[in-house]
Amino acid sequence: MPVTSPIVVLDSGLGGLTVVRALRKVLPAEDILYFGDTARVPYGNKSGDTVTRFVGEIISYLQDYDPKHVVIACNTATALALPSIRKQFPRLTITGVVDPGAQAAVAGVGSCTAPRIGLIATEATVRSRAYEHAILHLRADAVFSATATPLLVPIIEEGRSLDDPLVRLAVQQYLAPLCKHGLDVLVLGCTHYPILKDLISHVVPPGVAVIDSAEQCAEDVNHRLTAAALRRTDQGEGVLRCFVTDDTPKFASLAERFLGLHLDIAPEWVSPESLYTPRRPEPLRAAV
Amino acid sequence: MPVTSPIVVLDSGLGGLTVVRALRKVLPAEDILYFGDTARVPYGNKSGDTVTRFVGEIISYLQDYDPKHVVIACNTATALALPSIRKQFPRLTITGVVDPGAQAAVAGVGSCTAPRIGLIATEATVRSRAYEHAILHLRADAVFSATATPLLVPIIEEGRSLDDPLVRLAVQQYLAPLCKHGLDVLVLGCTHYPILKDLISHVVPPGVAVIDSAEQCAEDVNHRLTAAALRRTDQGEGVLRCFVTDDTPKFASLAERFLGLHLDIAPEWVSPESLYTPRRPEPLRAAV
Repeated sequence: MPVTSPIVVLDSGLGGLTVVRALRKVLPAEDILYFGDTARVPYGNKSGDTVTRFVGEIISYLQDYDPKHVVIACNTATALALPSIRKQFPRLTITGVVDPGAQAAVAGVGSCTAPRIGLIATEATVRSRAYEHAILHLRADAVFSATATPLLVPIIEEGRSLDDPLVRLAVQQYLAPLCKHGLDVLVLGCTHYPILKDLISHVVPPGVAVIDSAEQCAEDVNHRLTAAALRRTDQGEGVLRCFVTDDTPKFASLAERFLGLHLDIAPEWVSPESLYTPRRPEPLRAAV
Repeated sequence: MPVTSPIVVLDSGLGGLTVVRALRKVLPAEDILYFGDTARVPYGNKSGDTVTRFVGEIISYLQDYDPKHVVIACNTATALALPSIRKQFPRLTITGVVDPGAQAAVAGVGSCTAPRIGLIATEATVRSRAYEHAILHLRADAVFSATATPLLVPIIEEGRSLDDPLVRLAVQQYLAPLCKHGLDVLVLGCTHYPILKDLISHVVPPGVAVIDSAEQCAEDVNHRLTAAALRRTDQGEGVLRCFVTDDTPKFASLAERFLGLHLDIAPEWVSPESLYTPRRPEPLRAAV
């Protein structure tokens, strides 16, 4: 596998661009192929079978680009699909956001005994218990609690500001049982939620660490590429190409919000049907 | 076309079961095939091209059942796709929920001059201007205004009660500009919204008529079947079969909420892929 191969980052929609943002900070020279399944978004209220099928289709479609690393930048998809997706693509290196998030949570509690770790995430992520298992595997004495927060993604995608009373009320309602239960660390278990991080940090009691798994996920990729001698060391800036299954009117504004920078190229549209009939891709750099 | 042919009702998810509920009241002997595209729900934040493609796939899949009537029981799908879907399937009778809703709205204002008609709906439905065109076609002097209310579907699907302060706040925020603008009639332009009808009726000023297009849509189907001599007159109760593209854990509770009765049969799963390779269907009655 050449060191110039791209990193694939995939998500149900555009929230995974928060992971791209973090990757570009630590690995600026890497080429990144981002895939947002905007025709079938969200994944958070769907079954494990369906989400696994969707993720498998996307990776099949992109594997001809010979990626050196695939990041499932969606907590729901990681929680529901990662183990079976790894079996389905044994020759690819595939990582997700749950293990890095769990590692960051455990690092955040330091050495206190019986640390209280809370999670907010989609219904499907909470139901999967993937974070609970990952955290208890690292810290068997942790006291874990989780709340499904299904309104936060649509609230963020609607573009409401952090001082909107409805946004504040939703965050307060969702966090109340976790705060009552006691909290040392709160994990934001969805790549959309960093947009609300400032508000969430104000609503939790002082001293609670709020963990955003995107940064930890990027560090994890950096570490793995370095260990495998696959990290690019050239000075140029990597290419970012975006694929979407629906070119929705809100793509530009949402992409800018999650990525934190203006995207000066339009996304490339991939019909959901064509995911079943992969084509030979064009060269990554030549097409830009 | 035999009088015993079924009626097809399709929706992005399960909200269209409110239309099935209304149909069963006025046409109890009819067989109904309900299709909920739960793997790709929602449609309200997607593009017209994508929604038209999805609706076309579903009708292609079900047309071998030789339906005597197809109802697009989703406001977004009706608003974005109905005209091109009718061209794509010229031999089928296909109706939606927008025209019946517009007719009910205009009937609701009576003979007052310059009636003020408001709409709440998904972003895509509002953007399409389908209701505006349908209403102004019937009443050129109507003063139309619309607000996209993207949080209402996830709020309803989360199962929150009507006295939840967040539900009340969302409804108040969304309706404030319409109420300020002045309102004689408010159209609920999404098949989910009848669940919130009691709350909405309390938030709008007294005397404002709140129009639910599901009932009017069922009356419209009844009228058309009668006119075409296709209405079943036998006494038995019609069969209801449900197809879904994702058998989500919440199917039973949501279906019961929208349908208003317990579904004693599980839905039949149709994989999104199989929508591209229609099979020969089994006989409708024998399979039940």
